[in-house]
Amino acid sequence: MTDALDQLKSRLGDCQSLDALTSLLTWDQRTLMPPAGFQHRAEHLSLLQRLSHQTLIDPEVGSLLDELESRDLDPDSWDGAIVRVARRDYQKAVQVPVELTAEMVRAASEAAPGWLEAKSTSNFGLFLPLMERNVELRHRYIECFGPQEEPYDVLLDDFEPEMKTAEVTRIFGEIKPELVQLIADLRDRDVDDSFLTGDFDLDEQVALDYEVVDLFGHRPHTWRVDPTEHPFAAGAGIDDIRITTHYYLDHLKSLFSTMHEYGHGLYEHQLPRDWANLPVGQSAGLGIHESQSRLWENLVGRSLPFWRGFYPRLQERFPSQLRGVDHEQFYAAINKSQPSLIRIEADEVTYGMHVILRFELEQDIVNGRIELKDLPELWAQKMHDYLGVDVPDHAHGVLQDMHWSSGLIGYFSTYLLGTVMSVQIWEKASEDLGDLDDQVERGEFTPLREWLAENIHSQGRKYPPQELLRRATGSTIDAKPYLAYLKRKFVAPVAA
Amino acid sequence: MTDALDQLKSRLGDCQSLDALTSLLTWDQRTLMPPAGFQHRAEHLSLLQRLSHQTLIDPEVGSLLDELESRDLDPDSWDGAIVRVARRDYQKAVQVPVELTAEMVRAASEAAPGWLEAKSTSNFGLFLPLMERNVELRHRYIECFGPQEEPYDVLLDDFEPEMKTAEVTRIFGEIKPELVQLIADLRDRDVDDSFLTGDFDLDEQVALDYEVVDLFGHRPHTWRVDPTEHPFAAGAGIDDIRITTHYYLDHLKSLFSTMHEYGHGLYEHQLPRDWANLPVGQSAGLGIHESQSRLWENLVGRSLPFWRGFYPRLQERFPSQLRGVDHEQFYAAINKSQPSLIRIEADEVTYGMHVILRFELEQDIVNGRIELKDLPELWAQKMHDYLGVDVPDHAHGVLQDMHWSSGLIGYFSTYLLGTVMSVQIWEKASEDLGDLDDQVERGEFTPLREWLAENIHSQGRKYPPQELLRRATGSTIDAKPYLAYLKRKFVAPVAA
Repeated sequence: MTDALDQLKSRLGDCQSLDALTSLLTWDQRTLMPPAGFQHRAEHLSLLQRLSHQTLIDPEVGSLLDELESRDLDPDSWDGAIVRVARRDYQKAVQVPVELTAEMVRAASEAAPGWLEAKSTSNFGLFLPLMERNVELRHRYIECFGPQEEPYDVLLDDFEPEMKTAEVTRIFGEIKPELVQLIADLRDRDVDDSFLTGDFDLDEQVALDYEVVDLFGHRPHTWRVDPTEHPFAAGAGIDDIRITTHYYLDHLKSLFSTMHEYGHGLYEHQLPRDWANLPVGQSAGLGIHESQSRLWENLVGRSLPFWRGFYPRLQERFPSQLRGVDHEQFYAAINKSQPSLIRIEADEVTYGMHVILRFELEQDIVNGRIELKDLPELWAQKMHDYLGVDVPDHAHGVLQDMHWSSGLIGYFSTYLLGTVMSVQIWEKASEDLGDLDDQVERGEFTPLREWLAENIHSQGRKYPPQELLRRATGSTIDAKPYLAYLKRKFVAPVAA
Repeated sequence: MTDALDQLKSRLGDCQSLDALTSLLTWDQRTLMPPAGFQHRAEHLSLLQRLSHQTLIDPEVGSLLDELESRDLDPDSWDGAIVRVARRDYQKAVQVPVELTAEMVRAASEAAPGWLEAKSTSNFGLFLPLMERNVELRHRYIECFGPQEEPYDVLLDDFEPEMKTAEVTRIFGEIKPELVQLIADLRDRDVDDSFLTGDFDLDEQVALDYEVVDLFGHRPHTWRVDPTEHPFAAGAGIDDIRITTHYYLDHLKSLFSTMHEYGHGLYEHQLPRDWANLPVGQSAGLGIHESQSRLWENLVGRSLPFWRGFYPRLQERFPSQLRGVDHEQFYAAINKSQPSLIRIEADEVTYGMHVILRFELEQDIVNGRIELKDLPELWAQKMHDYLGVDVPDHAHGVLQDMHWSSGLIGYFSTYLLGTVMSVQIWEKASEDLGDLDDQVERGEFTPLREWLAENIHSQGRKYPPQELLRRATGSTIDAKPYLAYLKRKFVAPVAA
């Protein structure tokens, strides 16, 4: 008779493998799949979800959990964490019919080509029914958990475990007025970034992306970088990491997107090998995930030390475009703060407002205070109020992100939570590593990678996100270091 | 209460989807996967096999089959075929432990990188343990079916349903002496094919492959062509077809490989849409599959009518390499018959001997008459005896194909069975379509595609392979048309 823990691991291992396959199939759908294959793909993803869900909610899993909980395992041990994580996942899953989650996956997958077409033609009418179907499914999902004081909590918890809407509202409430002020202060600064637009050869950009990914570092033969419409990171396990980017032939912005996805990829790459095939060995939550991507994109990739060291190599690749531009001018240009339309291209100062806008609209959607058909207008109004920009068309407005069309509501807030946490993590790593800035300038990333591995990545889901952050940095989420960082970086140097 | 047939379809649909995912993951492994991901991949493929096998052998499937068989469904109806095919698959699957088939899949997947390395370093010592493990698993698989007069039958039946070893032996026995004679007759002919070797730009080759695939025809947004080591066709369903090829910068041979894989892809592409997600809607067997690839590669792609029409377009892509070469010289060159080392690059005359060699060695392997360690020597001896060529190293000998390292024994014979059937099918299509040669010359492939769809592809697994062939052409497999075709094509024109 196999031990209860081994039996539980075997069942959870199957769930985890099915989820890894989902990640890979989603990557394939968004990079290489012949477009007409989307109907097969929706069926296949839906099947994987159904099998994973069925495996998880088998009554035997409940019995195994009961038995294991009676053993009073050390909550700080991996065995204790396996049971805690499994109980959480099981407790949520048993409340939801398998057919509903399978349908949610199918509807999300089927929406993907519709969103692409809606965006490319700026046609909100194509997007609306996709979003309606997916939002309706989310409402049914929320109902599974019974009456809620704050229904949005149900969705948020799937992306940011144990975080409450009220807490996000408090944090964003602290950030919002400060950002509004900063944006106003920076709005009229004149920074030359004309050289970021030009003629940037595709092959050179691809080579540059691989150069940066290799410089930041990873084990050999484990990564890919591929083009896609809306960049993301995925993969099939810690030795099969796939990041994506969107190349523009007239701009260098793809590079920063690649650095961002590198951060996501590195997290997945450094998850604990011993638990790689169990839920406990996966990432702690989307906020922590985003802290990793924002750390590499901004704290490394948009820092002065990095460009002090790396700029000559960039200039070598694009000599005519960057002729006469020195690394300080380049640094100023890539950190130009200016309200703009597209979230994933926003600078560090304005970025937060893009997320707050979505978070607010999502509250209204979930609580039924607005109709989906009014979203473009409400979007445009908030963009005007928060960032002072006018939305010229839906492609540059409500259609820019794929999330809502596939029902991903409750997800956006993790982008700003992660950004906030990235500064806390960076400052603790700097404190522990001593001369982190010098290391970045010299292109030595091994100490940073290892620090992240030890303190964040290798912990998997052993602790809930805020407990993980507290153990790594000494504090749960706190907006103050983030706000101080923004002021230091964006206000001080010019005032000096 | 759902009808028994609907219940059966639902279960079989899951099996089929899991198999489609296996096909896609195998494609990914052999084209794009970061090499270090192979261990994850082996686990995931093994899991899909286990889930598919478990779903199929559920006792409820047996009960449903019993009930449906009692209804005496019309054997010529699709419902009748669904039950017949399911009974066959079920009856085989229940005799084999799930853990064994899962292990076979795992071992095959794990062997893939080892084979690549063994081949690239011409190191049989790396290959041998992989093959030993996989052959041992095949022996255990055969044992599941009880004592056999001809154990090889068990393996053959998985690839070529209902075909017996004795029948293959009889057909190959008819072919072998004729090929030996033909090879001897053609051996000293002098044909200039020097212009097939040269400097062939990769981008032009890729564009040429897509041009040919588009010319042969398919529905829009449904196909991909990607590079790989050992070409194959795969995909995730009728609207997601992925073929692969191996580009050589100094030779044009990739083009014929692409035509070959187009034939495989077209078969999958034209399977019956109504049954696409059921086993009955899949291909009839590997022999029929190969008849489709060989038909497009040889009967179309190496024919004089095709090159009469298409040659100017080829010449336009490679003007310097093909300067002064006319379409008849080109046709002669691509049909030069000369004993050589590599099966997949062999001309139509010598090709059969490569297969017969493998078929004979496989008999000896399965019946334990030879030791695996002696394979290189036995291989070299047969290459010398049958084709008069000396094997310079293992990479050009026993390591050239990946099949054995992953336990695919019983597979090779389908290559020659398919080649034989391709001629029977071609001749019947010519008879029905009237001016097929003229259509090929004009680049009009719609009638041929539709004829193949109607007579072969859309039939799925409704009939066993030989019955399908008989219905399509009026005869079961017959080597005579194939042998007559070879003589007509290779002996007559020069004698005239």
